[in-house]
Amino acid sequence: MKILVPAPLTASAFAPFGQVIAVDAAKRHFSINGGNTERYHDLAELDPGPDGKLIVSIFRGQPRTLPFAVEMMERHPLASQAFMPLADEPYLVVVAKPGPAPGPDDLVAFLAQPGQGVNYAAGVWHHPLLALNRICDFLVVDRSGPGDNCDEVSLSTPAMLHLP
Amino acid sequence: MKILVPAPLTASAFAPFGQVIAVDAAKRHFSINGGNTERYHDLAELDPGPDGKLIVSIFRGQPRTLPFAVEMMERHPLASQAFMPLADEPYLVVVAKPGPAPGPDDLVAFLAQPGQGVNYAAGVWHHPLLALNRICDFLVVDRSGPGDNCDEVSLSTPAMLHLP
Repeated sequence: MKILVPAPLTASAFAPFGQVIAVDAAKRHFSINGGNTERYHDLAELDPGPDGKLIVSIFRGQPRTLPFAVEMMERHPLASQAFMPLADEPYLVVVAKPGPAPGPDDLVAFLAQPGQGVNYAAGVWHHPLLALNRICDFLVVDRSGPGDNCDEVSLSTPAMLHLP
Repeated sequence: MKILVPAPLTASAFAPFGQVIAVDAAKRHFSINGGNTERYHDLAELDPGPDGKLIVSIFRGQPRTLPFAVEMMERHPLASQAFMPLADEPYLVVVAKPGPAPGPDDLVAFLAQPGQGVNYAAGVWHHPLLALNRICDFLVVDRSGPGDNCDEVSLSTPAMLHLP
């Protein structure tokens, strides 16, 4: 069985799948509000897709226990989906590049730290929310609009996700 | 001098100015991800304005000390601006209804708790970020686009903001 061990989440490692939303991933930042505030600017390629609009929601996820069997993946073909953790806990991200339904060997796992969000580009396969340690809230920016924007696939054989 | 004492932030009290982004302000929530996750759905009226697009940024604010003299206000006439706290700290919100430049008696103050974000509707006067206790990060969803989207006004006399 395929063993998945998450790598640290960095902007460069995650680039094939979308963007990391974090101060140290900012291409540009500048001072505002008379010097009180630093603005880390435009951190994600938000994409509402055709006829869609962006909405903001909170996802409250139950924690997963490890090792965790990755048995399915999903994608949103029409639009991006961004997650920003509101709890001071790490979480896991499992992704695969856009294209045909992924197999276990196509999966890539990351361990995200508090203060690191992710924005999945349209069509990027990903596992649903993988909170750790306790119930965790995430701010989510995704699409509302017409059409079917969620595909799910079962993996032919599960992959087992372990902590490093 | 006008004394401003913040009220608790609730969806109904804040309704003239925009929306509270919080699980207990959700009009609708439902289970997703095979029962793992509760989705508190579509919590803010995000408004990119004419020819604008929504972007996501992080604001890192220095804490304010109280009592604090409110000497100016600003507004974004073209679009909404949403703030979600990423730190486990309260913060202050000072607003005034859209319209002519506000005076001290037009100001309304709220004490926001961790887990409570705010979305200012287009044209709502508000004071820049008022973090408390320590340096605090906020996820911000606002507008990128052409045109001047920030008006600032000085108050004729300051208002003094105290904690309750």
